Order: sequence, then structure tokens, then C-alpha cells
Amino acid sequence: MRKFDEQKELNSMNGALKLRPLINNFIDQISERGYSNVCWLGIGGTYASSMQAVVHMKEKSAIETFVQNAAEYLVTGNKRITKDTLIIISSVTGSTQELVDSLKKIKNEVGATILAFLDIANTPLEEIVDHVIVYPMNEQLKFFMVADRLMYLANEFPDYDDFYKEMDQHFAKNIVAVAKKADQFGQEVAEKHHNDAMHYFVGAGNQWGATYSHAMCYWEEQHWLRSKSIEAAEFFHGTLEVIDRDTAVTVYVGEDTQRPLSERVAKFLPQICGNYTIIDTKDYELPGISEKYRGNVSPFVFRAINNRIDAYVEHLNRHPMTIRRYYRRLDY
Amino acid sequence: MRKFDEQKELNSMNGALKLRPLINNFIDQISERGYSNVCWLGIGGTYASSMQAVVHMKEKSAIETFVQNAAEYLVTGNKRITKDTLIIISSVTGSTQELVDSLKKIKNEVGATILAFLDIANTPLEEIVDHVIVYPMNEQLKFFMVADRLMYLANEFPDYDDFYKEMDQHFAKNIVAVAKKADQFGQEVAEKHHNDAMHYFVGAGNQWGATYSHAMCYWEEQHWLRSKSIEAAEFFHGTLEVIDRDTAVTVYVGEDTQRPLSERVAKFLPQICGNYTIIDTKDYELPGISEKYRGNVSPFVFRAINNRIDAYVEHLNRHPMTIRRYYRRLDY
Repeated sequence: MRKFDEQKELNSMNGALKLRPLINNFIDQISERGYSNVCWLGIGGTYASSMQAVVHMKEKSAIETFVQNAAEYLVTGNKRITKDTLIIISSVTGSTQELVDSLKKIKNEVGATILAFLDIANTPLEEIVDHVIVYPMNEQLKFFMVADRLMYLANEFPDYDDFYKEMDQHFAKNIVAVAKKADQFGQEVAEKHHNDAMHYFVGAGNQWGATYSHAMCYWEEQHWLRSKSIEAAEFFHGTLEVIDRDTAVTVYVGEDTQRPLSERVAKFLPQICGNYTIIDTKDYELPGISEKYRGNVSPFVFRAINNRIDAYVEHLNRHPMTIRRYYRRLDY
Repeated sequence: MRKFDEQKELNSMNGALKLRPLINNFIDQISERGYSNVCWLGIGGTYASSMQAVVHMKEKSAIETFVQNAAEYLVTGNKRITKDTLIIISSVTGSTQELVDSLKKIKNEVGATILAFLDIANTPLEEIVDHVIVYPMNEQLKFFMVADRLMYLANEFPDYDDFYKEMDQHFAKNIVAVAKKADQFGQEVAEKHHNDAMHYFVGAGNQWGATYSHAMCYWEEQHWLRSKSIEAAEFFHGTLEVIDRDTAVTVYVGEDTQRPLSERVAKFLPQICGNYTIIDTKDYELPGISEKYRGNVSPFVFRAINNRIDAYVEHLNRHPMTIRRYYRRLDY
């Protein structure tokens, strides 16, 4: 398998799950003190992960929670963000300009409480925020652990302990198994689509953010391939009209509450398109994970599959995913 | 001028502005009775207009307000929508399935208050909602009038009367003047881009929803032309990498608080792209509209310009904008 170190993957995910006591220690304090609402602040990939956290919470929570784009905060502000707001962010580099600037502004002018997940220590962001948890990768898992604890404390997730018992025991090895099972499929998809002039990605629910991010942060930014993401619910209100026999379309069909929206696209597409790919999490076994929790795990299943596709696209195109044409190379 | 009836345009906009007493009569009652939050519910084009209403309010309001996609509500729900929520919707046909179904669900299961703008009378939606205002077109103006009244009543828009005095006197004729001034430009843009394999539209702030809608509901749905919309703030976090010399990109630079985000793209683009179009509302005079209100009017300026472009694209492509390939023609 190209670009795949099983033990490293297992360690990475299991290590992330072990952050839970650190997360809970902080969240429990904040919850006891009280907060008015929860804001997930990001830009680019972290904006996308934030969208997923919000949809994840909406499934069962009455807590006011929303996404705030960091750059937009700098110019428009957001009066719902007050000193009583809990803000959650994640950053790989800890130096993304819009994040640094917006958090400084929030800290100085508003005084909200900020929890930051940072991939590395000693970055500019670390000095601004209230609480830092340093651990690489696994952004979505970190966000979901925060969301789940908040909902547990609000009596909206009574079986929280059962769920995390299953996660701690079975999550990492299941996701690794998905990657292995999807490897050949990933290679086939890559061979068929690595040279697409345009590729449409359709997703819904807790996979929408990842769909947006896969099109923009992976295919556009890392592969320099043109792509567009569309919410499954919105697909029928415009985009469907430009889909024809040869249009490349991938549909992510997950198992959260919005599954019917993606299923609707997946069922319709074969009538008008001969170049589609359906990725359905139901095709992947997750032993030890109860049926009712599979929806929570769907984004991680998709991630493992997408990573397989990307590894082969990278090789076929002889285009290292780490290089950028313009990003952080030109001034803007 | 193709597809342009000056008197009809003037009458349409001035008639919409005259809805204000009807809107205020209802909103004042709701405000006096009290409400917990404001939800703009839509799908496709009305989802886009809802995004604009939310950004418009965020400029100055602390009222909790959010967009809810109608189809997503049907499967995921939204616990922030309660009996104390004010819901605002708009519909041209009054029969869009996802809207009808979601509003029925809200009415029966939650009991929120629903204000509906409908283009025509006697449609299925009329029987579900609490209050109906029937008047064709001008969706964004209707939404902004609701938003502005809510903010006025919350003491967040003290110069509301000054603003609407200017709007009543000068808005319609200014927008018509913009259309006339932009006609030749519209024709030139259409001649250059009516056959684009792909066109990128970049927008921000209270123009973001319209940018999304212009790409999806106009270029994809009505012209069957491929296009993608990107938020200006997000442009630098992925999409920029697929822009090259010949990529067609349009940037909308408006005058609301998010102007700097679009300006940043407009300033950067010429370094890497030779096929861009910048549309800046500052190039259009709006006599009688104070400088401080021009940001509120920007989406309408863009709309008038886009309509000119679309009229010529339609003609050049000999593709009537009213026909649909699949929408409401196939089952899904």
C-alpha cells in the first residue's frame, strides 16, 4: 500500500482518543462555569471541519452553536460572540494569519474563552488562547470529542460513555481496516479520474464539510485538479443541469441523519450520468461499533477511503501533494 | 437593451418597497410578543437569499439568526427552532416540495411563527404559514426589509427611517440607471464568456449568497454552463491553486464590511490570471443614497449588472433561460 504505515495510523488515532481526559477536564470546567454558545472558528480546512462539528451537534443538541470564518470575523465581526462564548479552533501550523488575527481581536476586544488544538507546540497561537492541547492530526476527532462532551454535560448524549468505550476499543483498528479494504478501489478511482478536467463531489450532513474540503483543500490545493463540491440537498437546485454522460461525479453516502439526501442523488445519477462513483460507508464493516453510532464514524470511514484515492492520484500525476503553486509563496 | 423594460423594472421595485407597512405591521406584532431567534429557511435560490439576509444582519445585530436548508431540516431537524422562533421564507411557485414539507413539519411539530413571501396567491404554502405577503420578485429586498425592521425594533438600526426615506425616493431609479450603464459591459462580458468551459465566481459578505446563486441557479441551472462559486475569504485556501492564465474568474467587489476580502482577491488575481473580470459597485453612482448605505445596496447593483450579462449570454447561446433539462422533468 502506497503511503500507508499501519502502526503509525493506529498510534495516531489511539493517541488522539487518549486526549479525551484532557479535553473533558477543560470542557467540564467551562460547562460548570456556564457559557452562552459555542463557536467553531476556522478558515479553509479548519472552516470545513467546523462545519462538520456543527452538523454533528445539530443531530441532537439544542445548544446554540455556529461556524465563524476567521477572515470574515476580522471585517464583519459577530455580535453573538461575547465574553460568555466558548470558541474552539484547530491549527496545524499555529500561524495561519487570519486565525491569529481574529483570535487576538476576540481576546482583546471580547474576552471569550478559547480552546485551541495545535499540531505543534510553541506557535504564535499558543500565546493568545486560554487552553491548548498539542497533538498532531485527527482534527475531526478532536472536534467531535469536544462536541460530544458538551452534549453529554447538557444531558443530550446520555450514552456518551458507551459510545466512547466502543471508540476506544474499536475505532482505530476499524479505520485502518477500511483503508486496507479500500486500497484497490482507491487505485481504480485514481486511475480513472487522476486527469479529470472537472470533478464534482456531492456530500451531506457530517460529511459536507469534508466534501467541501476534499474538493478545495485536496483536489484543488494539493493535486491542482479542478473540482466542485455541492451539498446533496442543493444538487437538485442547479448543478444537476450541467451533469451529462461523461461528467465525473462522486457521491458520499454516509450513515448520519442526512443519508437520505445523498441517497437521493446516488439513485438519480445513473439516469443521466455514466461516470459516477458512489462511496457508501455501509459497504464497510465496523466490528464492535454499534449500528446507532455508525453515523458518527462515517466521516472517518470516508477520510480513510479518500486518503487511498489521493495517494494514487499523487503518484499517477507525479505531483507531490506538499507543493504549492501560490499559497504562502506570493504575497496577497 | 435586450430583455429590459424600464417602466416594468421601476414599478416592480417601487411596488416591493411599498410592502414595507405590511411587513412592519406583522414584524412589530411579533417583536412586541417576543421571539427567541430568527430563522431564514430555504433551498436553492431561497437558501442563497437567506445567506445574504443573515450576513446583512450580522453587520450590526446581536439577534440570534441563522439559515436553515429546508431539505436538511426534514432529516436532521434543528432544535434551535422552537415555538418562539420567527421563520421567514420566500417562494416563487409556492410549491417547492422541500419547503412545503419542512414548513408542515415545523407547523405541526414545533409551532414556530412563519412569515412567507409568495410570488403568487393560492399555492400550497399559503395554507401552512401564519402570515403571507403576495408580491412577485424582489426576494432580497423583501428579506432585507424584514431584517432591517427587526434590527430597528432591537435598537440596532436607529437611522432606519433615514435609510428607507432614501430607498423609497432613489433606489428603483438608481438600479435602473445601473442596468442601463452596465448594458454594454454586460454584452462584452457575455461575448467573452458565453462559451466558457468553466467560470469561477468570487464574492463576499452580503453578495456571497448571490454569488453562490449566480453560479448555481443562473449559470448551471439556466444557462447549462459550468461554474463554481467561492467565498473571497476561502479563495486563498485552495481554489487559487487551479487558477492560471486562461481561467475565467469574476470577482464581485461590493461596499459592505467584507469589501476588503473581495478586494484582496481582485488585487491578487492579475498576477496569476489573464482572464478575470472585476465588478466593483464603486464604479456606479447612486445619487441620493448616502455613502454609509451603499453597502446595503451593493447586492442590487450586482444583480442589475448580472442580469445584463445573462440577457446576452442567453441570446448568444440561443438557450432560453426558462428551459430545464432535468429539474421537475424527471423524478428524484
